[in-house]
Amino acid sequence: MKVFVVKDLLAANEEAARENRRLLERYGLAVINLIGGPGAGKTTLLEKTIALLGASLRFGVIEGDICTTRDAERLSRLGVEVVQINTAGACHLDAAMVGRVLGELPLADLDVVVVENVGNLVCPAEFDLGEDLKVAVLSVAEGSDKPAKYPLVFHQAKACILTKLDLLPYTDFDLAAVTEEIRRLNPALEIFPVSARTGEGMGAWCQWLLEQAQRKKQPASGCS
Amino acid sequence: MKVFVVKDLLAANEEAARENRRLLERYGLAVINLIGGPGAGKTTLLEKTIALLGASLRFGVIEGDICTTRDAERLSRLGVEVVQINTAGACHLDAAMVGRVLGELPLADLDVVVVENVGNLVCPAEFDLGEDLKVAVLSVAEGSDKPAKYPLVFHQAKACILTKLDLLPYTDFDLAAVTEEIRRLNPALEIFPVSARTGEGMGAWCQWLLEQAQRKKQPASGCS
Repeated sequence: MKVFVVKDLLAANEEAARENRRLLERYGLAVINLIGGPGAGKTTLLEKTIALLGASLRFGVIEGDICTTRDAERLSRLGVEVVQINTAGACHLDAAMVGRVLGELPLADLDVVVVENVGNLVCPAEFDLGEDLKVAVLSVAEGSDKPAKYPLVFHQAKACILTKLDLLPYTDFDLAAVTEEIRRLNPALEIFPVSARTGEGMGAWCQWLLEQAQRKKQPASGCS
Repeated sequence: MKVFVVKDLLAANEEAARENRRLLERYGLAVINLIGGPGAGKTTLLEKTIALLGASLRFGVIEGDICTTRDAERLSRLGVEVVQINTAGACHLDAAMVGRVLGELPLADLDVVVVENVGNLVCPAEFDLGEDLKVAVLSVAEGSDKPAKYPLVFHQAKACILTKLDLLPYTDFDLAAVTEEIRRLNPALEIFPVSARTGEGMGAWCQWLLEQAQRKKQPASGCS
């Protein structure tokens, strides 16, 4: 019975994700589902990405949190459109939650929608939200063994950001070994070691994101 | 219906937790449920705790992981009894999983059982495993806002270990503000800032753990 219910929930999620994807495709939006553990540095990465690309791309953000509106407040200060979802205890966003708030964003005036998922390296990887691509976020302070221990998100992501590179000299994180392990899990994954604090590596990540958005944006979408 | 099923699962978990607790109480064991996000430093904390207290307390460890047996292998090298639970994707341990492996540990020859939960600051907090106390583990690299954003585990824990204190100078973690925020969530919580790497703060945490174990151990338990 438990398995039946879980399957049922995932099937319902897939249907809601398809609906989200249909809507988002109409606007030619690049939609990113940002997944990482608590404190992996997702919000800071997003702040710096928006600061660097804000002149080239119009961002909308959906902030998933269990409690508080702190991340949404941080991002609102950058002048981007932010919608907060408080999951009231739930450990991940699902497609229905995202579907309910998509209408709050001015989709016709955006190029990219970033969904910052609940801080959790496990559960969010199982739920398609209707995104174009998942981006895994792992901080070098979390340790070299994490890709092997939490493989699903690395299997599913199109890009992996290794954050807090400025802390590398003070940890035993082995950048070469982790890169190799991630490539073993998913040879097609783009890997971006970055420090949002110093700016190191941010250029390559932003360039890649810009290309994803340009690929999605059609010259005449007829939607705006 | 979804709510009904969830309640049903939690009720089943409570029954299994009561059974575990009855068994563990018979042996006078102190049972710790260690909860923190991926890379919070739970395994390293446990390695150093066992190294420091191994002469005073006999440890058994239950290692919860989604994949791999890496943590169990690390701890086996210290000569303690370790049982691995691989959750096959599940984001937390539940009491039934723990109950199935308790018989693998030589309970009569132990003083403390530490359950290292799956790396996840959210879901494990909802499942009583039959432990005496939950210990929340948060690394200073994860950021000052985490207690407010993930309050449940801080509400439920008896102690909170703030790990990786050696990284403090290189982060913007505000130790005083976080301590105050944790105390607001749970005034009774014992807070131990530690660096397992340098040993700073480990003495106070180990002393507290020793006291918990001594309190549980009865002079004549009649079980061994």
